[in-house]
Amino acid sequence: MTQAARQNFKLVVEYDGTRFSGWQVQVSARTVQGEIERAIATMTRQSIRINGSGRTDAGVHALGQVANFRCNTALTASAFYSGLNSLLPADIVVRSCQSVPESFHARYDATGKTYHYRIFNRHLPVAIGRQYVWHVRKKLDISAMETALDRIVGTHDFKAFENSGSPKSRTTRTVYNAIIEQSEDSRYLTVKLSADGFLRYMVRNIVGTLVEVGLAKYPPGRISDILTAGDRSLAGTTAPPHGLFLVSVDYAASASSEESPDLSR
Amino acid sequence: MTQAARQNFKLVVEYDGTRFSGWQVQVSARTVQGEIERAIATMTRQSIRINGSGRTDAGVHALGQVANFRCNTALTASAFYSGLNSLLPADIVVRSCQSVPESFHARYDATGKTYHYRIFNRHLPVAIGRQYVWHVRKKLDISAMETALDRIVGTHDFKAFENSGSPKSRTTRTVYNAIIEQSEDSRYLTVKLSADGFLRYMVRNIVGTLVEVGLAKYPPGRISDILTAGDRSLAGTTAPPHGLFLVSVDYAASASSEESPDLSR
Repeated sequence: MTQAARQNFKLVVEYDGTRFSGWQVQVSARTVQGEIERAIATMTRQSIRINGSGRTDAGVHALGQVANFRCNTALTASAFYSGLNSLLPADIVVRSCQSVPESFHARYDATGKTYHYRIFNRHLPVAIGRQYVWHVRKKLDISAMETALDRIVGTHDFKAFENSGSPKSRTTRTVYNAIIEQSEDSRYLTVKLSADGFLRYMVRNIVGTLVEVGLAKYPPGRISDILTAGDRSLAGTTAPPHGLFLVSVDYAASASSEESPDLSR
Repeated sequence: MTQAARQNFKLVVEYDGTRFSGWQVQVSARTVQGEIERAIATMTRQSIRINGSGRTDAGVHALGQVANFRCNTALTASAFYSGLNSLLPADIVVRSCQSVPESFHARYDATGKTYHYRIFNRHLPVAIGRQYVWHVRKKLDISAMETALDRIVGTHDFKAFENSGSPKSRTTRTVYNAIIEQSEDSRYLTVKLSADGFLRYMVRNIVGTLVEVGLAKYPPGRISDILTAGDRSLAGTTAPPHGLFLVSVDYAASASSEESPDLSR
């Protein structure tokens, strides 16, 4: 029998958040972390905790959530990749599994994240794919939204866009990139945000505020006023979770240098 | 009170087939027809049967299914459009409602239909949108599939591609257009078929056979052999329902000449 060695594995995970009570494991709810830990337990016969790059809330989707777990096992990254994908339910797919240095930690080592938020802008709702967009009936002024969005690029204290219930000690973040992409028929909008990190509900609160700018309830400059005042009550409503996608998590090249090939296909 | 006049209404309906036992009303199953008839009954306090352009099977989606219903009512097409959309569940959307001549019948007057079938071709499955594609793991030879697909264009007896359990007396159909479109990354394929009509399971049996051609189980010319022999047992497997979309139903311009504006937005 092969000697079980101490190993650390990095997973890139896609999931459809529709039927999950979010990422984080909970006693009596279906969660992404819980499903993955159960599949790992089946493969290793060990109860192992995985570290996500961060929580995603109930209903939020991911194309590239990252997690790691350490375990004493003879199983290879390739075996976990195949085994987890055959054990996991259809709404979770492991896109890649790599063996990484013992020190790698999906949350502590993350240097940035990209989120996309999808809006469907037409009077009539959509049936096909409705679980992946926020339906906004009234015509949005995209140009006003873009002007507002430009104001959040850079380093700011984003505490006004944090979930009011969970203040973090450090609420300054740097937004690297913030754009709105439109589909050809201009009905689908995607707000794309990249930053060194995000506060809880930050994307959904920014998008909720942007939509109020798009509906001419706020002038575009209001975003700067909200950032300056740091007052949550000035920001717009929180956009619903099902339009939000965690697209990717960045790491310094050294943090997860590959010892085995990336198995994503 | 406005006099209730005899009217005929044409509906264009989008639905997500995932949670329906198909179009046709059934006693103890959730169906699209059943949901629409219930909403009409709520609005009119009458039990009214609607005529679909044809059934779609359990799990099949529609972007442009057409139905009509006749009723003595003072309600306008505009009132039905708004009322039905507010009463119907989120997986059905009425895209338009028009008042049409008394003689219009969604099934008898249909002159053609267009279906799309979506395939996701990658070893790894997809979690986001998995309910709208058939996942085929092995690499498909698209060029061979296109060669095979060309053979079905034109007028043929399609009885070999009919559901074995439900033979129709007339099984000749004319396919006007048959193409395969690929996404930029070549992972998503859409088989697009337009014909004067389709037999039950015809699209799914054609796509199942095409995929076997794409996997080199059959040579492309096999399609012609199957059509000539008219033998269901020679055709490939039936593709699963959840990749199939009824995209549109055609009518002669006179059959549904608009008396009120098209309310699709």
